[in-house]
Amino acid sequence: MRPLPERLTALRNRLREDGLDGFVIPLTDEHMSEYVGAYAQRLAWLTGFGGSAGCAVVLADRAAIFVDGRYTLQLRQQVDGAHWEYEAYSASSVADWLGKHGTVGQRIGYDPWLHSRGWVAQVSAALKRIGAHPVAVSHNPVDAIWDGQPAPSTAPAFAHPAGFAGRHAADKIKDIASWLKGRAADAVVLSALDSIAWALNIRGSDVDHTPVAHAFAIVHADERVDLFIAPEKVDAALRAHLGEAVAIRAREEFAPALMAEYAGKTVCVDPERAVVAIFDLLTQGEAEVDAVRDPAVLAKACKNPTEIAGHKAAQLRDGAAMSRFLHWLSVEGPKGSQTEISAAERLRAFREECGPLLDLSFDTISGAGPNGAIVHYRVEESTNRIIAPDMLYLVDSGGQYADGTTDVTRTIAIGTPSAEMRQRFTLVLKGHIAVAAALFPEGTRGSQIDILARHALWQHGLDYAHGTGHGVGSYLSVHEGPQRIATPSVFGAGGDEPLRAGMIVSNEPGYYKACEYGIRIENLILVVERALEGAEKPMLGFETLTFAPIDRALVDVALLTKTERDWLNGYHAQVLDRIGPQLDGAARDWLGQACAPL
Amino acid sequence: MRPLPERLTALRNRLREDGLDGFVIPLTDEHMSEYVGAYAQRLAWLTGFGGSAGCAVVLADRAAIFVDGRYTLQLRQQVDGAHWEYEAYSASSVADWLGKHGTVGQRIGYDPWLHSRGWVAQVSAALKRIGAHPVAVSHNPVDAIWDGQPAPSTAPAFAHPAGFAGRHAADKIKDIASWLKGRAADAVVLSALDSIAWALNIRGSDVDHTPVAHAFAIVHADERVDLFIAPEKVDAALRAHLGEAVAIRAREEFAPALMAEYAGKTVCVDPERAVVAIFDLLTQGEAEVDAVRDPAVLAKACKNPTEIAGHKAAQLRDGAAMSRFLHWLSVEGPKGSQTEISAAERLRAFREECGPLLDLSFDTISGAGPNGAIVHYRVEESTNRIIAPDMLYLVDSGGQYADGTTDVTRTIAIGTPSAEMRQRFTLVLKGHIAVAAALFPEGTRGSQIDILARHALWQHGLDYAHGTGHGVGSYLSVHEGPQRIATPSVFGAGGDEPLRAGMIVSNEPGYYKACEYGIRIENLILVVERALEGAEKPMLGFETLTFAPIDRALVDVALLTKTERDWLNGYHAQVLDRIGPQLDGAARDWLGQACAPL
Repeated sequence: MRPLPERLTALRNRLREDGLDGFVIPLTDEHMSEYVGAYAQRLAWLTGFGGSAGCAVVLADRAAIFVDGRYTLQLRQQVDGAHWEYEAYSASSVADWLGKHGTVGQRIGYDPWLHSRGWVAQVSAALKRIGAHPVAVSHNPVDAIWDGQPAPSTAPAFAHPAGFAGRHAADKIKDIASWLKGRAADAVVLSALDSIAWALNIRGSDVDHTPVAHAFAIVHADERVDLFIAPEKVDAALRAHLGEAVAIRAREEFAPALMAEYAGKTVCVDPERAVVAIFDLLTQGEAEVDAVRDPAVLAKACKNPTEIAGHKAAQLRDGAAMSRFLHWLSVEGPKGSQTEISAAERLRAFREECGPLLDLSFDTISGAGPNGAIVHYRVEESTNRIIAPDMLYLVDSGGQYADGTTDVTRTIAIGTPSAEMRQRFTLVLKGHIAVAAALFPEGTRGSQIDILARHALWQHGLDYAHGTGHGVGSYLSVHEGPQRIATPSVFGAGGDEPLRAGMIVSNEPGYYKACEYGIRIENLILVVERALEGAEKPMLGFETLTFAPIDRALVDVALLTKTERDWLNGYHAQVLDRIGPQLDGAARDWLGQACAPL
Repeated sequence: MRPLPERLTALRNRLREDGLDGFVIPLTDEHMSEYVGAYAQRLAWLTGFGGSAGCAVVLADRAAIFVDGRYTLQLRQQVDGAHWEYEAYSASSVADWLGKHGTVGQRIGYDPWLHSRGWVAQVSAALKRIGAHPVAVSHNPVDAIWDGQPAPSTAPAFAHPAGFAGRHAADKIKDIASWLKGRAADAVVLSALDSIAWALNIRGSDVDHTPVAHAFAIVHADERVDLFIAPEKVDAALRAHLGEAVAIRAREEFAPALMAEYAGKTVCVDPERAVVAIFDLLTQGEAEVDAVRDPAVLAKACKNPTEIAGHKAAQLRDGAAMSRFLHWLSVEGPKGSQTEISAAERLRAFREECGPLLDLSFDTISGAGPNGAIVHYRVEESTNRIIAPDMLYLVDSGGQYADGTTDVTRTIAIGTPSAEMRQRFTLVLKGHIAVAAALFPEGTRGSQIDILARHALWQHGLDYAHGTGHGVGSYLSVHEGPQRIATPSVFGAGGDEPLRAGMIVSNEPGYYKACEYGIRIENLILVVERALEGAEKPMLGFETLTFAPIDRALVDVALLTKTERDWLNGYHAQVLDRIGPQLDGAARDWLGQACAPL
């Protein structure tokens, strides 16, 4: 493997050969995915950055990499500041940066299969202002220089049975077709991999931890579906599951089909989830494009009763694994016998022992002491720390089960925590409880809820640089839209989606003291209708879905109100009630103590 | 005066003569003002609606009027449901309504001097979808049929001295010119009346309660200003105040100037605050339009130390007037000797006695019992109620003083309040306190703060259908942008403005039980920097500016936390300390009791 600086040099040489003065390398794929297959890890290959969100831009004489607040620390550890300028999305953007550092006449390349239409419009406007030109490349120059670029996965796709999905794919397609008729449109392009997986009740293994298959789909108003997918991924069982209305076509046929088959027709395309190339090809093919959110997005986010029941079953197994792990940690932690890596492996093993684990839902974040302050830390041999007194240990992990996707974070005191750690943990806990216990009218958005999680921290001048909650799929993406709980600045025009009954979101406030420790408390919560006596409007609330003890040693009870204390004791009683019967012996005794009222 | 139904008929006849199938009548003027001069009260003249926000749309066979949640009850009382369909902005829009009820080929008129560019684009798109056509009229058909339409005001404009404004107009113009140079633009159109008033340190009397003069201004990058204003409004003193850099031009020259004087130049125009006609004229004149927020808006919102000191001085006088009024009411209320009208008159008289009152800052809302539930109630002889036991009385009022603009609401128990009234009042108070006491990092928006005001109500399934806070000017508009405290749904693309030190906003949660009573507690609050020990980011908070007792008889102390109770007692101690010395005898004794700790 070529060393990193040589890769950057090779890219610059290649850009010169291609007649380009610059190039933009986002972290995504042709489906605007957050987690991408190995073949599409261009940003990581070029820069060394291992986070899940970022973008690099390379000019002849300078290069920059953009990340959000979660990755500020990680960026400094993984990416060489001698070659890359560190930029924060909160302060700047690729468009701003190019507008500042580009010069008149320059040709700045981008891969139209890796960017949204809005991004291209923004960058094009910035370049136009300085007299430079955006250039859509037909072949990605990073691919041209990447020796040993992995081939796209050939893993088979498979059916996700209606017993888990709660609805037959034919029903879902019928709904989408009826939605199309309501818009007087002929077809809709589904390009988001989880939308395709949801709509057709299929899953795959093309991306680590996210059970999707690489494909594009076009759903027609007459309920026919074109599924563009490598044919070898579709075996006879899947072919039968998909039924006659679904035509299997090679993935390579997708682009030509957009250009050739929709002249004079109206095709819906999601401007947030489809790359600009899809818009361009349809327009070239004289289709009328209706830019609108993919209809699977909201339907997928609102879980049906089968999915909710499945999720709850998965949470019981996952909670048993977490509790066994926390018991094990309570024994091993004080000895200093374990590392971040060994702990993450043990946790995986507990998950495997507690039920049919299909995958982790993301790379476990196992951070001891200062590594806990790196919000999306991914342990490697070079950074691996011993877990020992006196420190905080943060573990954020989840499982992919056929009946549900989990995501849970616990922060544990190893040895004796400082008063400051306990105070900060309790402030984070107050935020967690405020979200968990909130009641709010229909129509309320996650951006309104967000302050409840931060309010206690803010009163001490503290905060955390990430969102409070993300949606979670049903044996699908661990990060799923359209709902979120986050500050309004992260949302584009139109703001965020109102919360609706059936949505699952995470509730994960935190606090991070750089180079010392990190705190995060994460449960998944379900939006539910709440009947209140005397209520004058329909109200919603949250039901907590995750069951694992919250470290009592880190709670400063004096800082809790009676209501907050009651919440914590009530939660622990539920944990003991649901998880206790799954444990034996010492683990069960430990759980009893860990869940004792405060 | 023609009866209302005849006016509607006359308009329909006129539309036929003009070759139009419909027409839209907004409540605004050529400056997109919220409060407009008598000549521009077209909506009120046509429909009878007396609120401050709304829009009517008239077709040959049906007509609708749109209002927001504040005016739902008032609409039903003032506008005849036999002729007008009631529509809520939260559920629909003029564009949606026209898209639904218009038909192919129809010509729907609008006055391009009364709508934003965005509104016209939205309505045009809706009409296009159904094959109908938007038509910009050159003469407003309402004006054509309005016998006795008042002439525009000829009141003189006058200087607002730097001793109150805190800065010379020349300094402000210099800043605007330097902002223009930074954008490589040649000029900016100021069309919002309060922006012009702020930038040139002038005031006027063309609109009730809002001390602005009807004018347009164009500020050039070379610091010259064209002020388009009726020349008779400018006397020698004002002419001298404005200085040589300001050219006085007749208001009628504005439109021709836009078309004739900017070919090839770049002119900044605010898409939210300028009407579409301004964009159209500049474009016809071959100017390049730079659509951007008027630079006076944010500068005006962040008060300077002189303006803050002036506001505080005005609040002391205003607080004395409010306290005298509340004492008077404590004597008269139980007797049943007063009405909504007489009480409002008495309050105005107290304000006049306490200092140099230049105007009220809006029509006093004086609502007894069920009238208190009409959020923006404006008492008339026909609705006037006696104030007597046992009811709640709500009074929302403010004064225009040369040093500041005030706005305060108090809700008073006359006689014995019910347990429900006390519970609801206390929930509203909890929201008021949560906002007043909040600490938050720089960059926080009002849409994040809003939930603090509603949270206590929400836990009981209750809410209020208006925003929590609006900006307030310095001897200027009582409603001023760009900051607000409100739910995100009221903001357009880009969301709301982060709160900054020096901004004044209202803090006015409420609760309204239709046909029974209304509750609102409103103080003005100032955004201030807060130095917190150990804070990891720059923090902001609020300083309460309004001083008048909050009715202790309505507080259910058992529902308050200790922190909330401490806040209320601390607030009342401040009221007594600042207002007490201005009162004598019985009023002073009463204030001592009204401010006693709970």
